Amino acid sequence: MDDKAAPRITIPARKGKAVRLGKGQHIKVINPTGQQVVDTWAFNANNLSEFQSNEHTRAFMLKMIPQPGDVLFTNQRRPILTMVEDTSPGIHDMLIAACDPSRYELLGVSEYHDNCQDNLHAALWELGLTAPETPSPLNLFMNIPWNGNALSFEESPTRPGDYVVFRAEMTCVVAFSACPQDIVKINGLGRKPTHAEFAVF
Amino acid sequence: MDDKAAPRITIPARKGKAVRLGKGQHIKVINPTGQQVVDTWAFNANNLSEFQSNEHTRAFMLKMIPQPGDVLFTNQRRPILTMVEDTSPGIHDMLIAACDPSRYELLGVSEYHDNCQDNLHAALWELGLTAPETPSPLNLFMNIPWNGNALSFEESPTRPGDYVVFRAEMTCVVAFSACPQDIVKINGLGRKPTHAEFAVF
Repeated sequence: MDDKAAPRITIPARKGKAVRLGKGQHIKVINPTGQQVVDTWAFNANNLSEFQSNEHTRAFMLKMIPQPGDVLFTNQRRPILTMVEDTSPGIHDMLIAACDPSRYELLGVSEYHDNCQDNLHAALWELGLTAPETPSPLNLFMNIPWNGNALSFEESPTRPGDYVVFRAEMTCVVAFSACPQDIVKINGLGRKPTHAEFAVF
Repeated sequence: MDDKAAPRITIPARKGKAVRLGKGQHIKVINPTGQQVVDTWAFNANNLSEFQSNEHTRAFMLKMIPQPGDVLFTNQRRPILTMVEDTSPGIHDMLIAACDPSRYELLGVSEYHDNCQDNLHAALWELGLTAPETPSPLNLFMNIPWNGNALSFEESPTRPGDYVVFRAEMTCVVAFSACPQDIVKINGLGRKPTHAEFAVF
């Protein structure tokens, strides 16, 4: 997997970034500081109403969390991304919605708070695109363990420099948000959201 | 919970049915034959782009499966239904997408197959309504156990006559599909989808 020549693109702390991928291209998502959650979406570049769907992917994958070799599917049951490498401890989340203005209002924040939902749409807008909805995200590096029927929000075990690589199975737009959550501890006990990076090759 | 005077309404085998509920009304969903999966959706009656969202509900509920007392939330993070009673073994699913034409095509079915996605939209159409998308359903009585990271499709432990009761927390439209899945064993080893029933009171 040769990404040495590929420029590193920053997903600014608390903000989003999107990129077009040709079929067969790879994208490496890097967690430079560790513990930073990166909400991730993938859309068919030719039809943004088709996108990676957690509930459809689970029906094929028969797993809670993807691992290298696993294919992610769209809401039209077509392959869109394959996870090809993961140097992190393998803890990601496909259960929890993107944070949004209501989430922070309910957490007691009275002013506008950066949020992954708005970051997704702003990142697509930078590419001249509008998505019809906010799909349930693949939350890279997010730790939502299940214990029997119980779920909880926990710190990520991801280490600085850990990364995940995906291969595009169709021409697609991949969007990221460096999650700005600083009320609950999902981005680490320090509650200091940081940037992340990606490279396309 | 007095539903004795409430008429039983049939969700025909392999088909859907929807109903309007006023805030505070109850709906009892009955599994007359046992093992029949009932895909369930709830929409804000005044705005069908707001609906019960599994990924938002999980963020509040912190459970994989709702139990009596648990509130289900919309994609705008507002309460829409509360589960108030469950006489079944409590096995339901919030992980797997509704079956749709692609699902049956991929399972090798060459002709049109009844499916929960089309049943949802047909049931809403009977009420003069059009939903902008197919939300991830609450699959009542569906058994998708998790074992570590692994998921599987298993027979339902639900017994004939078991039921679940919900209270509406807003004026809403609740839609059901008596799942027509007869290829995998999710509706029982006999693979014979049956009807279900509901009553509003």
